[in-house]
Amino acid sequence: MPNISQRALDVPLSPIRKLASFADRAKAKGRHVFHLNIGQPDIATPQAAMARMRQVDIKVLEYSPTEGWASTRAAFAAAMRKFGVNISKEEVMVTTGASEGNQLLFFSCFDKGDEVIIPEPFYANYNGFAQIADVVVRPVTSTIETGFAMPQIQDFERVINNRTRAIFLNNPSNPTGAFYPRELIEQLALLVKQYDLYLIVDEVYRDFCYDGQEFFSVLRLEGLEDNVIVIDSVSKKFSACGARIGTIITRNQDVMEAVSNYGKLRLSPPGFGQLLSEFLCELDDSYMDNVREEYHRRRDLVYERLTHMPGVVSYKPGGAFYCFAKFPVENADHFCQWMLEEFEYNGATVMLAPGEAFYATPGLGIDEVRIAYVLNTTALNQAMDCIEQALVVYPYKKVRDMAAIG
Amino acid sequence: MPNISQRALDVPLSPIRKLASFADRAKAKGRHVFHLNIGQPDIATPQAAMARMRQVDIKVLEYSPTEGWASTRAAFAAAMRKFGVNISKEEVMVTTGASEGNQLLFFSCFDKGDEVIIPEPFYANYNGFAQIADVVVRPVTSTIETGFAMPQIQDFERVINNRTRAIFLNNPSNPTGAFYPRELIEQLALLVKQYDLYLIVDEVYRDFCYDGQEFFSVLRLEGLEDNVIVIDSVSKKFSACGARIGTIITRNQDVMEAVSNYGKLRLSPPGFGQLLSEFLCELDDSYMDNVREEYHRRRDLVYERLTHMPGVVSYKPGGAFYCFAKFPVENADHFCQWMLEEFEYNGATVMLAPGEAFYATPGLGIDEVRIAYVLNTTALNQAMDCIEQALVVYPYKKVRDMAAIG
Repeated sequence: MPNISQRALDVPLSPIRKLASFADRAKAKGRHVFHLNIGQPDIATPQAAMARMRQVDIKVLEYSPTEGWASTRAAFAAAMRKFGVNISKEEVMVTTGASEGNQLLFFSCFDKGDEVIIPEPFYANYNGFAQIADVVVRPVTSTIETGFAMPQIQDFERVINNRTRAIFLNNPSNPTGAFYPRELIEQLALLVKQYDLYLIVDEVYRDFCYDGQEFFSVLRLEGLEDNVIVIDSVSKKFSACGARIGTIITRNQDVMEAVSNYGKLRLSPPGFGQLLSEFLCELDDSYMDNVREEYHRRRDLVYERLTHMPGVVSYKPGGAFYCFAKFPVENADHFCQWMLEEFEYNGATVMLAPGEAFYATPGLGIDEVRIAYVLNTTALNQAMDCIEQALVVYPYKKVRDMAAIG
Repeated sequence: MPNISQRALDVPLSPIRKLASFADRAKAKGRHVFHLNIGQPDIATPQAAMARMRQVDIKVLEYSPTEGWASTRAAFAAAMRKFGVNISKEEVMVTTGASEGNQLLFFSCFDKGDEVIIPEPFYANYNGFAQIADVVVRPVTSTIETGFAMPQIQDFERVINNRTRAIFLNNPSNPTGAFYPRELIEQLALLVKQYDLYLIVDEVYRDFCYDGQEFFSVLRLEGLEDNVIVIDSVSKKFSACGARIGTIITRNQDVMEAVSNYGKLRLSPPGFGQLLSEFLCELDDSYMDNVREEYHRRRDLVYERLTHMPGVVSYKPGGAFYCFAKFPVENADHFCQWMLEEFEYNGATVMLAPGEAFYATPGLGIDEVRIAYVLNTTALNQAMDCIEQALVVYPYKKVRDMAAIG
């Protein structure tokens, strides 16, 4: 029997994966599991767009061009105008989700051994993209105590060396919900220009900024046209994860040509998803306004509930639909598993993502979890009841912290 | 301005790409271009399945599981029964087209420097998959004079070394249309077993076998359950290239786990495409029977026309919708470009794929082209008229061959 590759054995997997089987077993025992572990929104995909999909009469469902249908690219370009970004359709490539966008960029912009700087905690799959492309991730740590504010510029500068090629950001951030305002982006831009790096920003949550904060796209930075690359997706903002449609947006023609060349290997992005994306881009603002308000309510609820749990450290995230919380436990990974294996409250339990998975620096995030507030407020309240109760009865609490609080 | 990666500059691109701009210019001049250069079928996607798509009411278009929806996997498994293959849904992973299936396998089965054996001419994108994964392609040559019959077993054996991990086949073959019957597959299986290699077969054209030949899937090979991996897709058989849905089918659980782990990095295959695929799998045989008959007619037409062109060498392909032809020209790449730049007949010209692109051995295929017979017989006849006339007036004919024929 032939062996699988060594690299397949080494592929960095999310520890959430290990918990999935415990969640299945909890369900088999009849327990309801509130899934706060993944970014799968429960909100309905815009039904007006779905209705238009049902009107479409396609004779031959053919390959699109590698870069996507011209009409789809144009729709995405037009949708950037409300963020003050003027971009042409030639500067937009349609990808099979933001995931593919990341992978295409890792190959197009970096050679083996090149380094990218990413504030941690970060989206765990960056580790996988880096492994596949033989790229080194250099984390710059942000902390829960500051609400995961952007690290200082000197922290970024400290890890720059002659193999550094890019700074990656998520704005607002998955997994922390941190929002990076214009002035911080502009400070970072100076550094990017000084060292002539790529500034690659995943802006898939740009529509989810709370408390009246105005989102500032890096595509508005002047003089950095060749450095800036944006990754986008319809998945989160339109609850259309299954469409598998994202974009790479850049004014750097060489990058656009390179990602397009790699893209030729997979022929084209999905056809139905592209069509849906056009319809989504043409919606008026009411859908997004409602969704933003809904997530805003959920964020307030989660923050309020966490604030009242003894020994829990959290913060009010400025965007996206995630937050981190530090729990008064020795090991959050064990706590998450215990919740699924041993615990129930009113016939239910909660699945959370252990925080450690989102840090590259060993030892960080061990007592933290990520909470995705992707359930309605009723369910979310029930889930928070479970967490609150679980933290009371969990037998392996952190002794030091409890003493400090007590 | 930061540079793109060296590997992006080195990514092996199909030379067809270079011709695309010449085709665009020919069209701008008002010429009709018959596209025989790509495997984009003109046949309608099954309208019964498309009609069912219009009935679907999706509330949240969510991620599917990494391996695809259970119902989609089950539909693909069930569809294998008519080929005498008994497979469970757990042995089927849904991929974003056969292209992704290939890429997942290159990473899952091979480490850097590992070698795979592929009969040439082969699907040109294998070069790209190999570059990305740092895998070495070892070609075993087949020739137009034998109708691209499978190379001798000793030809395969000659290139096996301690880094050899797999033999790749397309059956029937893209780009040659060669059909490999059961006895040849069984001979190859002995070799695969002897050296404990993977036998990875792209069977996307399995429904297109002509002259009453019966297709034999490698999944029927006994005692090779852990060696055999099949790649499949709905793109060609159902004219559904834009669905971006393929499968990896294997009984090797380690391989299934490895491709699934890599698959987690892209979260899930496309949702609409999976739904369409279920409907396609549930169709009765009449659609496929009609399509097969249509391609059969086209194959006969192309073969018949080529046979009557002086100095042209071709053969009757047993499957798929491609054939190769050797033209009496010094350089087929130049001939293809000349057809688009300089030539027209009745207001039209033809775009073909230069054969050289499909060989790994330098110097092979220089006077060959690949013809994809993806147009209806009327258009195909007009295209063949163009080719016939072009070969008469083309100024750079091969002198030797012309003399031999003359």
